[in-house]
Amino acid sequence: MSISRRTVLAGAAAAAAAPALHISGAEAAAPMKGAQAPGFYRFKIGDFEITALNDGQVNREINATLFPNAPLDEVTRLMEAQFMPTKPAVSPFNTLIVNTGSKLVLIDSGFNNNGAPTTGLMAANMAAAGIQPTEIDTVLISHFHPDHINGLRSKEGNLVYPNAEIIVPTGDVAHYLDDARMAAAPEGARPAFMVARRVFGPNFKDIKQAEWGKEWANGITGIRSDGHTPGHTSFVVSSGTKTLLVVGDASNDPRIFARMPDWHLGFDLDRAQAVTTRKRLLDMAAADRMQTTFYHAAFPATGFIAKSGTGYEWTPVSFSSVI
Amino acid sequence: MSISRRTVLAGAAAAAAAPALHISGAEAAAPMKGAQAPGFYRFKIGDFEITALNDGQVNREINATLFPNAPLDEVTRLMEAQFMPTKPAVSPFNTLIVNTGSKLVLIDSGFNNNGAPTTGLMAANMAAAGIQPTEIDTVLISHFHPDHINGLRSKEGNLVYPNAEIIVPTGDVAHYLDDARMAAAPEGARPAFMVARRVFGPNFKDIKQAEWGKEWANGITGIRSDGHTPGHTSFVVSSGTKTLLVVGDASNDPRIFARMPDWHLGFDLDRAQAVTTRKRLLDMAAADRMQTTFYHAAFPATGFIAKSGTGYEWTPVSFSSVI
Repeated sequence: MSISRRTVLAGAAAAAAAPALHISGAEAAAPMKGAQAPGFYRFKIGDFEITALNDGQVNREINATLFPNAPLDEVTRLMEAQFMPTKPAVSPFNTLIVNTGSKLVLIDSGFNNNGAPTTGLMAANMAAAGIQPTEIDTVLISHFHPDHINGLRSKEGNLVYPNAEIIVPTGDVAHYLDDARMAAAPEGARPAFMVARRVFGPNFKDIKQAEWGKEWANGITGIRSDGHTPGHTSFVVSSGTKTLLVVGDASNDPRIFARMPDWHLGFDLDRAQAVTTRKRLLDMAAADRMQTTFYHAAFPATGFIAKSGTGYEWTPVSFSSVI
Repeated sequence: MSISRRTVLAGAAAAAAAPALHISGAEAAAPMKGAQAPGFYRFKIGDFEITALNDGQVNREINATLFPNAPLDEVTRLMEAQFMPTKPAVSPFNTLIVNTGSKLVLIDSGFNNNGAPTTGLMAANMAAAGIQPTEIDTVLISHFHPDHINGLRSKEGNLVYPNAEIIVPTGDVAHYLDDARMAAAPEGARPAFMVARRVFGPNFKDIKQAEWGKEWANGITGIRSDGHTPGHTSFVVSSGTKTLLVVGDASNDPRIFARMPDWHLGFDLDRAQAVTTRKRLLDMAAADRMQTTFYHAAFPATGFIAKSGTGYEWTPVSFSSVI
């Protein structure tokens, strides 16, 4: 103890004798930064390099429009038990880019500047990740809801990924670009039809439709996951022995809809089919302990699914500083 | 359907007529980036702005040195059930900076350039977060283990935070700077004593010792959490009605040691006391649903603790793009 005190005091004395440093600003209060870190996260699937991207978030009220068949107090309890914000709830948006070695493939496009002020962060996050929109070779679209397609075209009408081939699900073309279906849709469903027209209507470089069960890009297979929309497509990304299941919106936030897969989401067009699809995909993820991503999970929105009781448990990946 | 097809085909035709864009590199394969996103994450506790920082990670073998009283197959099973890497296991290092409005307070210092090549990322992550080492006003040290103090002084001998007041726990000064204790320590415990001398020995600007139960900096109280080391100190950061509990090493990765709080960690010096301390802190976090950070949790290493069976359950925070 005497030695320790001596050591410390000797250090302090020596420091007092040393020339003082005067660095400008060192004595001023440091300003608050008020901004979040860039929302991108990298991981590998075999030889593919994946960059998960956050496109921001919106607040949502927990109500019967969003949760048509779940007791709302149970929804709130489940969320609170997982320390999720509930007043309001927060719904995030997350896309990803797959570098297959030959192509840069973006899955879903976010909002660009067509959404709420707390959305459209993808452009900044891509830039932070060192990827330019002009480098994107292919965009795969899971379905035609606005938060997935709006980002293909800016509010000013410009193509955001001018060099990309855009590949979309046949089933959603048939639904969302059909004027008779738009006319028949309830008022609340109208905006999605309008956005599909805004995005896909004008001169569009390279629209291509694709079917379930086919490879949409090298190593990326589109698989059936209808219910949320008629053409909703999930993706299996495979390289070497590794596989990533890109669920999209076949399940919204897995902390809610994997835990309680029978709960309906207001945005699911065919709710019974959505439940069937959700369970099929979650079973697939759990059986193979497959890495999985969800569009509306908390960023980086990638992790793992395990069976648990009558539902499934979601475990986000452990952040790794080594990729 | 005819309308949809017509719309899409019309778009493609118009695009074909439009002048082609030739952007250099657009047809080349995009290079893999091979690097992770900056490891910082921002959140508020009342009026305080917190920046969590990652200092990298090391691989560890699951063995009886690390887990002296736990059946190793149970350790592995528990980790696998949570999709944690086990071959090898990964141990991350995370510090944080509290901006109290008047002071920039760093809690623990990481490795700087004194550790394994996969550590010492804090400097780059601080820079990415827009914070300069010269701006740090105060460094609080939880305990004298190398991964917490090495970063105060670079391998070349320079002070990394030249304008900071350094505040350390009295109990660890008494232990780690006492030559008799160093002489009595087993060979494996020697490096910690040597590092304490390397860091604190030479002329050190402003060493200050502090006690448990006192405010170490404005709004930040050091609280007793011995066992891991004799002077180990956790911190309660309070602003307005909000509180953050900075556990430090009173529990290593909460996915293991909150779940199984009776398991010993090889690095805990007084293992029985470490268990008592761990349960007291976890009880405190759970009772008040207090936001909590752990030095060795997966980045951003902040979340919440709830009682669950004979142990506790860890829930990481939901990433928020809005702070």
